[in-house]
Amino acid sequence: MTTTPALVIKQANAAMVKENIERRPVGNTDVRIEIAYSGICHSDVHQARSEWGADIFPMVPGHEIVGHVVEVGAGVTKFKVGQAVGVGVFVNSCLECSACKANLESYCEKGPVGSYNAVDYNGEVQYGGYSKEIVTDEHFVLSIPEGVSLAEFAPLLCAGITVYSPLKHWKTGPGMKVAILGLGGLGHLAVKFAVALGAEVTVLGHSLSKKADALSFGAVDYRSTSDKQTFIDLKKKFDFILNTTSANISVDEILGLIKLDGTLIFAGLPVEDQTFNVFNITGARRSIAGSQVGGQVEVQEMLDFAAKHNIGSTIELLDASDSKNIDAAWDRVVDADVRYRFVIDAQTI
Amino acid sequence: MTTTPALVIKQANAAMVKENIERRPVGNTDVRIEIAYSGICHSDVHQARSEWGADIFPMVPGHEIVGHVVEVGAGVTKFKVGQAVGVGVFVNSCLECSACKANLESYCEKGPVGSYNAVDYNGEVQYGGYSKEIVTDEHFVLSIPEGVSLAEFAPLLCAGITVYSPLKHWKTGPGMKVAILGLGGLGHLAVKFAVALGAEVTVLGHSLSKKADALSFGAVDYRSTSDKQTFIDLKKKFDFILNTTSANISVDEILGLIKLDGTLIFAGLPVEDQTFNVFNITGARRSIAGSQVGGQVEVQEMLDFAAKHNIGSTIELLDASDSKNIDAAWDRVVDADVRYRFVIDAQTI
Repeated sequence: MTTTPALVIKQANAAMVKENIERRPVGNTDVRIEIAYSGICHSDVHQARSEWGADIFPMVPGHEIVGHVVEVGAGVTKFKVGQAVGVGVFVNSCLECSACKANLESYCEKGPVGSYNAVDYNGEVQYGGYSKEIVTDEHFVLSIPEGVSLAEFAPLLCAGITVYSPLKHWKTGPGMKVAILGLGGLGHLAVKFAVALGAEVTVLGHSLSKKADALSFGAVDYRSTSDKQTFIDLKKKFDFILNTTSANISVDEILGLIKLDGTLIFAGLPVEDQTFNVFNITGARRSIAGSQVGGQVEVQEMLDFAAKHNIGSTIELLDASDSKNIDAAWDRVVDADVRYRFVIDAQTI
Repeated sequence: MTTTPALVIKQANAAMVKENIERRPVGNTDVRIEIAYSGICHSDVHQARSEWGADIFPMVPGHEIVGHVVEVGAGVTKFKVGQAVGVGVFVNSCLECSACKANLESYCEKGPVGSYNAVDYNGEVQYGGYSKEIVTDEHFVLSIPEGVSLAEFAPLLCAGITVYSPLKHWKTGPGMKVAILGLGGLGHLAVKFAVALGAEVTVLGHSLSKKADALSFGAVDYRSTSDKQTFIDLKKKFDFILNTTSANISVDEILGLIKLDGTLIFAGLPVEDQTFNVFNITGARRSIAGSQVGGQVEVQEMLDFAAKHNIGSTIELLDASDSKNIDAAWDRVVDADVRYRFVIDAQTI
């Protein structure tokens, strides 16, 4: 057992406090990681504020983790001390079900174990990345390619794979017209990945305020969903639209932008029910689909792809010396006032 | 110009009256058909009662038409006098757009022209199959295989292709577990086609009253959606579920029956908005899709497949000598009191 400083939330909606937490002893296939950077995901806020249901307190959020290996168990084969590594959204799954066997641990039939706000199958409560160290089984540790910015790579572990996975699953590539709905933490990475995959990318935003950024990320067009002309000009234009927001959208309006056999994919997680008119899917054989983070093989593929194409998150780096800085950052996440992902410098925790 | 008796609806919700209507002269690529049987589709009722929006009166419904060729234009190449033929849901499309060129005339970008309650591109108002004759361009005429029951084939022209098309598009075949939601006009044909395609088929009905029929059509199981146990027993069982009803369903409950990467397909057309919770699609990468009738090549494929596999609709044949019989049948359609499709004997019109 080791102790490590962490940002702890004692109860729903409470401010963070800096306290020591315990990490388990390094087991046979475990890797102990000194965390360098930890990204802030909107889902951290949702869970710490109990907006999604039952939550476990005290809570240490964080599932966009990068750092360096400081110790490995005797049975570890993939990692060595000093290596740059990452941990994402899940830290365990059954590894036996059809989903796990298809390298889709994130869809494990037994239920994958989250990196925080979760209890492992053996009863161990999981604490996440807002801390200085973490101990994780090597199956759920990723290799970070050499030469990249670790801080800019941290958000790839959740935001990155959340958008990369559906872009790959729905075969984004040259000749395809893709729209990214929302230009936040997920959206800005979706633009970068979709462009690198060869698609023609349009961003649909609530306003035009981020147009210049979108074009700098490689988008060819940026339109406002507040402008009715958008829905006339872009009618039936896209092979698919990736909704990266957790806001309530007009599903029917967005469907109208999708061509025959196209798909609207939800990667964001709006809490409220969505509604649509059936004629808007039957009339052009459209689909409405949902997707979440990919399995470990795909997360590694995404990290390698990002390194190859010089993709990283556009970030604001946060000093956690005063934990109020992180509380304040959370409020800005809720207000969508971040370009484009907050990353905590874990050495300041 | 020829005149032919028809069942005419003068205004929304009016009873049918038997009157002569005019059919256009047989053009160069036209086929004049003496109608033998005309199926009754729930959409006939929706449109005659103006439940879907703007409608054109007087209206002659009917888009499940079979009969025999009695005259062909000089340029007709596919049909000859005496041949058994059919006409389905559409009688024209632009034939130039990407959808038409992909043999998906039903999804024509210009908008396909319905067999009734529609105006052709040249301004000609279309009257449907509740009559003794129809004149249709050969592109929208189908060949009915020899040796089949014409009356039982009539419903294939709409109900049949409405379910066959999604079953084929989503690759129904051996090893797949398919559920058919609703055992009405569409549903009973969906069971027959899905079984013939090699899938393991379960029917989900509102009650168990049609269980014996479903099993006789080849289903292996029949469960009631009114029984909560159904949603426990069949959790994550199906590759896809074809919703053939136009009733309001609990989309979230039905999604729970679908396995990873599976799809809920709407083939029926509920008028009211549908709602779902996004977590129910993201958690298992599920899709909600919509589909309608296929293009002409696929309709012909479906007719040939049905003949090969001895599939026809289970029907109640109607005598239209008194048009009140047809009005009464419509009321039974609305009450879902038909096993499983009404077909009008057109010679009694």
